[in-house]
Amino acid sequence: MSTQQPLADWPLKIDMSVVWGDMDAYQHLNNTVYFRYFESVRVELLRESGFIESMEQDGIGAILRDTRCRFRAPVTYPDRVHVAGRVREIGEDRFVMDYAIWSEKLATLAAEGDGTIVCLDYRAAAKAPIPDSIRARLEGYR
Amino acid sequence: MSTQQPLADWPLKIDMSVVWGDMDAYQHLNNTVYFRYFESVRVELLRESGFIESMEQDGIGAILRDTRCRFRAPVTYPDRVHVAGRVREIGEDRFVMDYAIWSEKLATLAAEGDGTIVCLDYRAAAKAPIPDSIRARLEGYR
Amino acid sequence: MSTQQPLADWPLKIDMSVVWGDMDAYQHLNNTVYFRYFESVRVELLRESGFIESMEQDGIGAILRDTRCRFRAPVTYPDRVHVAGRVREIGEDRFVMDYAIWSEKLATLAAEGDGTIVCLDYRAAAKAPIPDSIRARLEGYR
Amino acid sequence: MSTQQPLADWPLKIDMSVVWGDMDAYQHLNNTVYFRYFESVRVELLRESGFIESMEQDGIGAILRDTRCRFRAPVTYPDRVHVAGRVREIGEDRFVMDYAIWSEKLATLAAEGDGTIVCLDYRAAAKAPIPDSIRARLEGYR
Repeated sequence: MSTQQPLADWPLKIDMSVVWGDMDAYQHLNNTVYFRYFESVRVELLRESGFIESMEQDGIGAILRDTRCRFRAPVTYPDRVHVAGRVREIGEDRFVMDYAIWSEKLATLAAEGDGTIVCLDYRAAAKAPIPDSIRARLEGYR
Repeated sequence: MSTQQPLADWPLKIDMSVVWGDMDAYQHLNNTVYFRYFESVRVELLRESGFIESMEQDGIGAILRDTRCRFRAPVTYPDRVHVAGRVREIGEDRFVMDYAIWSEKLATLAAEGDGTIVCLDYRAAAKAPIPDSIRARLEGYR
Repeated sequence: MSTQQPLADWPLKIDMSVVWGDMDAYQHLNNTVYFRYFESVRVELLRESGFIESMEQDGIGAILRDTRCRFRAPVTYPDRVHVAGRVREIGEDRFVMDYAIWSEKLATLAAEGDGTIVCLDYRAAAKAPIPDSIRARLEGYR
Repeated sequence: MSTQQPLADWPLKIDMSVVWGDMDAYQHLNNTVYFRYFESVRVELLRESGFIESMEQDGIGAILRDTRCRFRAPVTYPDRVHVAGRVREIGEDRFVMDYAIWSEKLATLAAEGDGTIVCLDYRAAAKAPIPDSIRARLEGYR
């Protein structure tokens, strides 16, 4: 990975300024903030793939089943981070996303992670197959 | 105010352990956390006065119009705080709450604040008079 | 105020994308987030005026004494906000900032607020006069 | 596991009231809050095992290397949660903790997780062996 084009090959990317108040008493970003970053890129994908629309129309939505993060470098204010996401696997009723966070100031990968998102029929309160139209769009974010 | 019975005369009170992760890089509680504490006691009042029920049944709810906080002492982990609330004034379509936060470790008042809550008809998207049954219950929290 | 150049005359400004996870169960930005926005612009001023440097060198820092917010419009994801700050008054050992938050999606002022910041000699644990060099720089942010 | 004595056999436990403001727009606890809960029990262990003291005296501290969470049930306000932690493995320069969150209202396990904590010589900015006195105390939290 080049420092010139960090995360250039990832289909989903958000750039954010690091917020001073997201640091904790150790004077670097609190661990929960990395998961907040992951969430922001996940919500982007849910919107772009049609899950938000589907939730409103048919009650077919998405729910986070599990997630994890490997912290690689402590991020501090001021900095600018690039948060990237992509779809790694798509199953019958779930898919897996990879995440990565790049620090401009450190010029390095600050964290990597992943998470499983399950398709849920909120009306039936049961897992549901991923609708075909959403599945097709998810394929575009591999 | 006695250190033995801090905030003893306030009608609403919540006791909470201070969470390490709520401290910021200055190694004391971040200013936003005081407003989170105020919110917790406000939500208690909204439940007990019937605003939550009314919101679900008739779309008559409450919305925060303004709030402020006077910070008196920096709170640090570990500590236990007592967060108190009471109704100061009740108007036609709004009421004012007072808040106070007591630190057990410091044995002093850590913060004081207040806020105006407006009664809102969410269906009409307009201010609404406070329903009589709720008003009567709010009177009990002065 | 024109919708074309919101907050154009304010000396300090930060643009931020609204984060989905900053919404609460009412599905708009939680009230504490407005204070987090105010903090971000305040920290910018503390850096630019020399308070951060002074804290590291001489233990002369700044501490928030009080703050308030008047909520004008509920902000929702996705949106982009402009957070502005300026110095309103400078006293012997304190200064007052005004804050404003503009919503691009709503094309309106979402909130206004202010806060008093006190100059503190952390080594002596006592209020201190604002150093002249900092005072001169604060004047530039009126 | 009995609903009468949830997590009874775990050596570290914190009870907390669920805070309304920790719910997100899906109207249940935001995923980052589970990691905040894990952190609270981890910080307890760091204090009780001597890592906080060691950090202040010798610059030998602890840093989170990775963590994950498996979400099992959505937690909503009002509720009371029991957050438990224990030491699973102790290596030369790191140890692994398990976490669990029990919901009183749901009478079920809301989440499970784990995380690796690395011993760090902050002065040398390098991994360091876990000091013997801390290691002995960590053994007591298996």
